[in-house]
Amino acid sequence: MGDGILVVICDGLGDRPVKALKGATPLESAVRPNMNHLAGRGVCGIMDIIAPGVRPGSDTAHLALLGLDPYKVYTGRGPFEAMGVGMEVRPGDVAFRCNFSTVNDKMEVVDRRAGRIKDRTDELARSLDNWEFEGVKVYFKEGTEHRGVLLLRAAGLSPLVSDPDPHEEGVRPHDCVPKTPEAALTARVVNAFVKRSHQILNEHPVNKERIKAGQKPANIILPRGAGLMPHLPTIKERFGMTSAAIAGVALVKGICRVAGMELIDVKGATGGLDTDMNAKAEAALKALECHDMVLVNIKAADLAGHDGDFRLKANVAKRIDKAMGALRKGLPSDVHLALTADHSTPCCAKDHTGDPVPLAIYGPNVRSDNVKSFGERACALGGLGRLRGTDLLPVLLDLAGRTQKFGA
Amino acid sequence: MGDGILVVICDGLGDRPVKALKGATPLESAVRPNMNHLAGRGVCGIMDIIAPGVRPGSDTAHLALLGLDPYKVYTGRGPFEAMGVGMEVRPGDVAFRCNFSTVNDKMEVVDRRAGRIKDRTDELARSLDNWEFEGVKVYFKEGTEHRGVLLLRAAGLSPLVSDPDPHEEGVRPHDCVPKTPEAALTARVVNAFVKRSHQILNEHPVNKERIKAGQKPANIILPRGAGLMPHLPTIKERFGMTSAAIAGVALVKGICRVAGMELIDVKGATGGLDTDMNAKAEAALKALECHDMVLVNIKAADLAGHDGDFRLKANVAKRIDKAMGALRKGLPSDVHLALTADHSTPCCAKDHTGDPVPLAIYGPNVRSDNVKSFGERACALGGLGRLRGTDLLPVLLDLAGRTQKFGA
Repeated sequence: MGDGILVVICDGLGDRPVKALKGATPLESAVRPNMNHLAGRGVCGIMDIIAPGVRPGSDTAHLALLGLDPYKVYTGRGPFEAMGVGMEVRPGDVAFRCNFSTVNDKMEVVDRRAGRIKDRTDELARSLDNWEFEGVKVYFKEGTEHRGVLLLRAAGLSPLVSDPDPHEEGVRPHDCVPKTPEAALTARVVNAFVKRSHQILNEHPVNKERIKAGQKPANIILPRGAGLMPHLPTIKERFGMTSAAIAGVALVKGICRVAGMELIDVKGATGGLDTDMNAKAEAALKALECHDMVLVNIKAADLAGHDGDFRLKANVAKRIDKAMGALRKGLPSDVHLALTADHSTPCCAKDHTGDPVPLAIYGPNVRSDNVKSFGERACALGGLGRLRGTDLLPVLLDLAGRTQKFGA
Repeated sequence: MGDGILVVICDGLGDRPVKALKGATPLESAVRPNMNHLAGRGVCGIMDIIAPGVRPGSDTAHLALLGLDPYKVYTGRGPFEAMGVGMEVRPGDVAFRCNFSTVNDKMEVVDRRAGRIKDRTDELARSLDNWEFEGVKVYFKEGTEHRGVLLLRAAGLSPLVSDPDPHEEGVRPHDCVPKTPEAALTARVVNAFVKRSHQILNEHPVNKERIKAGQKPANIILPRGAGLMPHLPTIKERFGMTSAAIAGVALVKGICRVAGMELIDVKGATGGLDTDMNAKAEAALKALECHDMVLVNIKAADLAGHDGDFRLKANVAKRIDKAMGALRKGLPSDVHLALTADHSTPCCAKDHTGDPVPLAIYGPNVRSDNVKSFGERACALGGLGRLRGTDLLPVLLDLAGRTQKFGA
């Protein structure tokens, strides 16, 4: 049947040399005996998650790392956000990532995150959920903090529409404009939904209380990132394996749910800088007892990269290393572990870049190489050479004895 | 016109670290001064024969190494087996690899290899050859030992049928079932052929004599591995080169024949563990005198890998090395030699895996690198990096001055 597979994805961990770190990357500058142990006994390489020089999103990156070509299945983040917040999503649905936002009387956006609203968005969301317009079913659900998801269901919808979210403040929300004639209905429904969201939310008791308390009202929904839910076979269907994912972030959770992975909630695993990485490591080991493959996403390094804080990022790497210590000590001897990132988020760029990410594969069947440490440059000299993100799962499946022979 | 090319394919030579060999692979543990000479003066790399993590068959692997994309031309092994045993095969023919097998009175398979029958299968085969059913021409020819090939010729045949061979003993042969409506005729012919093979072979004098001698009768033919003969341009048509192949195994011979290569029979080259590798090397040097490109397949390492016998495999590597000594000493100075494998057959897996194979290219035009020995891990650090199987022939053609410029 095959052996176990554990994939640890340190979100945004890859970086570029930092002068103030004497030319090291944050990862290279971190004390990381456990990562180095895995790299030293394993086989290393670098990966272009999508292709050389292509900047991946966390969603397209995770699709690739799960063996799915994002150019074939990805139109936008919406449906994966919807899966991540637990909505039912069907092939053909079009979904949008949304913000609860604040507009003033002139309909100008004064806060794209409604004062970083944290509470009672579920009550606001319920007032918008389960509507119908021109035969299109409209669903809305809150995410964490100021986030939410709009989902449209009907035959003939299209994700080829512009974002109502203007992506800046001080201006009015944009009209949702169809990019092709086939997207006209989708655009009409979105515009009607945004208008209605303002009408309902502006009068909502939760917002009246927020204004009384000196807080900004969450009085409009601004959608963006339209995407069409693709038909996707599950990991079980593709490889006959059971699988589980441990992730704090809704988008990554959504990708994993779409791939048919069971989502495991871990207390203290927030998807933030304060996330309990050891709890994730322990949960991963436990999950391996009853799943063939387990994926763990640790988000914190990406956040430090977006903030451009290389010292914080180096510190995050050190904390991840401690979790890797727990992981490797408890790892069953027949499991192959891949330690990698979903993309680089260099502190100098404060955003994802196309720089390749380091990869170490550790386990009984690997041809270990001469690499002694886990870092962007050390791994580039490893025995795996340079792979693509979509290669990772086939390579792991083969090491775990889970592939079919092509030919005789 | 260009220089000569010699491709030496050590079938299944790639492996994984073996604990009992102090973590070396069988190849790495072998005394191999001649391979090391080629690697040390040549340029090295690793190759994913099909793609990272994909387990190749010997047939799909050789197609790739001859520059043909197996995903485009391969439906099953049948037609290549047919070519390998010397049958005439035309595009559109559907062929099956078969076993001479033994069934009892209840039609249960008691021996899938008919007591490993060795002799007089030509007489049995003749009794089944050249038949017709529902307008389909039916041909049958024996292979080595218990092997044979069934070939069907008509318009509108399909390889999308299930195997009558149950792949286990103690059960009845399976019905050949069409996987699509278009394959219905093919399935009917196969079922009629299997039934007829039992009727004829059960009464055949050769089998009566076998029973008398206490041997199992070869009283049924069990087909498997249906494949459609593709339209394939020859190496001559593709590259304007004459080419020859030296191989002991019918399947590899068949691939080479399909690619338009002349097959050279070498006395003592059996395709088995006892094969005379030096004879193959000498034949290759001789063939280079009158062919632009010569391919040599040496099967023995694959057999040791399938048996899981790492000491035997290391010994095979040592024997191959001696043949490489003869080869390199007699090699014309303008010939580029590629030393590689068609896939890994790790002793721990006892089957083909997707692990990349080592590659060394030796000859006047290569950019030699720092690799000093021929091994899975040493070559991974070489100047060729990580290639695909379909890249090998273009690289060799270019070194030999045999490629066309793309552009101006």
